[in-house]
Amino acid sequence: MIDLYLIRHGIAEAVGEDLADEKRVLSAEGRQKTKLVARRLFALDVRFDTLLTSPLVRACQTAEILVQEQLAAKCEVFSPLAPSGTLSDLRNWLATQKSRSIGLVGHQPGLGLWAEALIWGSAQRGFEIKKAGVVRLALETPQSLAELVWFLPPKVLL
Amino acid sequence: MIDLYLIRHGIAEAVGEDLADEKRVLSAEGRQKTKLVARRLFALDVRFDTLLTSPLVRACQTAEILVQEQLAAKCEVFSPLAPSGTLSDLRNWLATQKSRSIGLVGHQPGLGLWAEALIWGSAQRGFEIKKAGVVRLALETPQSLAELVWFLPPKVLL
Repeated sequence: MIDLYLIRHGIAEAVGEDLADEKRVLSAEGRQKTKLVARRLFALDVRFDTLLTSPLVRACQTAEILVQEQLAAKCEVFSPLAPSGTLSDLRNWLATQKSRSIGLVGHQPGLGLWAEALIWGSAQRGFEIKKAGVVRLALETPQSLAELVWFLPPKVLL
Repeated sequence: MIDLYLIRHGIAEAVGEDLADEKRVLSAEGRQKTKLVARRLFALDVRFDTLLTSPLVRACQTAEILVQEQLAAKCEVFSPLAPSGTLSDLRNWLATQKSRSIGLVGHQPGLGLWAEALIWGSAQRGFEIKKAGVVRLALETPQSLAELVWFLPPKVLL
């Protein structure tokens, strides 16, 4: 059984004229809320054998907070988690490795579409995952359809 | 916008040789956990204009705890929430009334199949809703497809 946690990055600074989207950093509120969510997840016994993040700064910072709060030993950049990534890339990766508890930090609408497709085999509209929200799925095998275990906006974790 | 909360009854006594399924009552653990879930929902600002329950004892007792913890002024039995009820009955009822926040206390697998069908238009496998677990959906109109807002096992609410 594989526990797959899809985690959207925390609240980031607004896009500015001089700030490219991929360089946006977490806001002070975003860092604080993400830290509280991470602590609550830790208290709920969430631990990741493998923690992967989108290469975008706000996602890396979110993953780093999860590491600081001891949910994982380290985080690694996984380029398919960038907004241009595809679920096929994730499925191919899943088939190659042995982690039982995997955290993925990424973006909307991609994560919400992935969650829907993992559960139903295809995506219609995608789930609306809030910033610092968590979707937990359980898969028997990397190829099997997932079961929804948690769909948590940060509000219920704070 | 309609907020629809699907709530599975709490943990009940086991079926015994002399105890019909519909007369099973909540166990002491079931009462206690349901009360804690209700208090956490209250703290999350959940309030029901209308709270409906299956006629089975363990569901009525769950709804009564929600009333005691001030999530609703009263609860009413709604026969389609019994294990034999259908989603059409719920949709027909939804179309006739004006409540904006509705709690429904019922059973598996029915509630999990309803949640799936409300989101996607049809049910494949149904969600696995734990005892005293809560699924929150948002509907623009009684006829529209629902958006998933929360999928909460009691563990994250205790």
